[in-house]
Amino acid sequence: MRTITVLSGGHGGAKFIAGLLHGISAGSLPGVSPDVQVTVIANTADDLWIHGLKVCPDLDTVMYTLGRGLDHERGWGRTDETWSIKEELEAYDVPNTWFGLGDRDIATHLVRTQMLEAGYPLSQVTEALCRRWLEPLHGDRVRLLPMTDDRVETHVAVKDPDLAASPSGLKVVHFQEYWVRLRAGVPAEQVVFVGLDEASPGPGVLDAITDADLVILPPSNPVVSVGTILGVPGVREVLRATRAPIVGVSPIIGGHHVRGMAEQMLASIGVDATAAGVGLHYGARSAGGVLDGWLVDETDAGDVAALRTAGLRADAVPLWMSSDEATAAMAAAAIELVTR
Amino acid sequence: MRTITVLSGGHGGAKFIAGLLHGISAGSLPGVSPDVQVTVIANTADDLWIHGLKVCPDLDTVMYTLGRGLDHERGWGRTDETWSIKEELEAYDVPNTWFGLGDRDIATHLVRTQMLEAGYPLSQVTEALCRRWLEPLHGDRVRLLPMTDDRVETHVAVKDPDLAASPSGLKVVHFQEYWVRLRAGVPAEQVVFVGLDEASPGPGVLDAITDADLVILPPSNPVVSVGTILGVPGVREVLRATRAPIVGVSPIIGGHHVRGMAEQMLASIGVDATAAGVGLHYGARSAGGVLDGWLVDETDAGDVAALRTAGLRADAVPLWMSSDEATAAMAAAAIELVTR
Repeated sequence: MRTITVLSGGHGGAKFIAGLLHGISAGSLPGVSPDVQVTVIANTADDLWIHGLKVCPDLDTVMYTLGRGLDHERGWGRTDETWSIKEELEAYDVPNTWFGLGDRDIATHLVRTQMLEAGYPLSQVTEALCRRWLEPLHGDRVRLLPMTDDRVETHVAVKDPDLAASPSGLKVVHFQEYWVRLRAGVPAEQVVFVGLDEASPGPGVLDAITDADLVILPPSNPVVSVGTILGVPGVREVLRATRAPIVGVSPIIGGHHVRGMAEQMLASIGVDATAAGVGLHYGARSAGGVLDGWLVDETDAGDVAALRTAGLRADAVPLWMSSDEATAAMAAAAIELVTR
Repeated sequence: MRTITVLSGGHGGAKFIAGLLHGISAGSLPGVSPDVQVTVIANTADDLWIHGLKVCPDLDTVMYTLGRGLDHERGWGRTDETWSIKEELEAYDVPNTWFGLGDRDIATHLVRTQMLEAGYPLSQVTEALCRRWLEPLHGDRVRLLPMTDDRVETHVAVKDPDLAASPSGLKVVHFQEYWVRLRAGVPAEQVVFVGLDEASPGPGVLDAITDADLVILPPSNPVVSVGTILGVPGVREVLRATRAPIVGVSPIIGGHHVRGMAEQMLASIGVDATAAGVGLHYGARSAGGVLDGWLVDETDAGDVAALRTAGLRADAVPLWMSSDEATAAMAAAAIELVTR
């Protein structure tokens, strides 16, 4: 196996890929050569403009995690972060109260914004940023591709008490506002992917799926992370057509997400927040879906039968990413599931 | 005297205004009421875009100085500055090697850039920023006005050894690059004010001169600071017409500038870098110039006669701004010169 492609969101996906790379280095993944090429196709529908800066939370979380620059205690942003700009914005009475922007992180956004404004597409900007973060540690063995160079934004409709008199009674907020400011504390009545239908896959995205020896859907949010990548026109088609086996790892364990707000998102699209529910939502390729195999946690072993009935290979193994070693073992089980 | 208008560059002008305000508070300025309104019209021709941010060195130096936020040891930028972004830009291999941008300073540029991109003119942006810096200390007694809302940029032509074969043998750099990167270490063959001829005076600029009880030209650079303000179409005309006396303070002492690069700039326009040379360059209003009085340092007492012959009131007093008290004494002498 020479090429692996991963469709990733932020935190969960990044952590999984770190474990995957650990397994590759350790030689613990069945049939995977040590010089395997890993391509990460990352969700960009969480991206937002804040204080005039283009922020790409999922791209940055993957980049910082794999480049050993992520603050793991916080779970986002940079190590050794400083907060002078945050203090100053408060002094100017234009605080960003809900979205944390550290000084070091802002430098990334400044470089990105300046390149975008000079006319470079996000894919080239990401490649330039990765020269710092990925090349020194991973050479050319790891590539990070935005799912699209086009602007796509996930918005979430929530009940708004102030608008009770309005026809819908809803207000729409950017996904980041729903997640970071509202802490996903109210039901997502509807999730809208602005621009997704008209987006084109980023350079290399379709080829990375077509030419892969294996495609992995890591434990990322099935609606707002992996779901948006699948929604980029053309992506589903190449997933259905690729000769590579496609295996997914459940982000739901025992009926709950490990981190994030997959439960709220799944509710908004009427999908059961269970390991089987998500696997069946993706569906077996043999039945028009995008998966060949679906790995669930041992807690959810009872879901395996239903998944197999639906045409999926399925197994139950421990899915807690408590260390790179534990995550590498998950990756090995996922690979084993679809290549044995 | 209820209103004083000052035409200012960065460092020298800001320091003078700080002394002027000190003299007002101390009641040591002849004929000046304690509630006098001070309007500062600041040069914006040094402004530049760097890393996608709009930086206004003279506006910020005045704002930070009067708001007690300027780092006096460095002579520019913010107190308690941190440098995380500078480190990060170096790590990204896009260092700003010649223009220092601290994290706190960048917050100012972020707020400014975002407001400009939202469509606010620089004058309104400056007013908003000054709500933090000037209001708490000075209430509404001090206003800071950009000379224009239009983009004006001073460029400097220097001899370029690499272009020796080119017809002119010159290359043109932004004024800030000449001053900060080249440290004004090579002769300025020519100074070009891009956009100045087409610029309109900023809101309030002409009225602040017309309605003033006194206009002061502080010891700022006569070419690239005060010279550019005088070059905004309409400014010279209202200076000639205002009923306010106009007094200037020499930035040249003993044939040298105190700080900056006035000597190089004066050489580029063929003006003697002497106290008299600059006074005569501005010229007496009675002879088509913009001054009624010109204060020189006691070292340059020998220049007074020539200045008086040219129709200017002139005096020689100590002009070293070694403390707010010393500067207030200079301001008092300047006021005395044109109001006695």
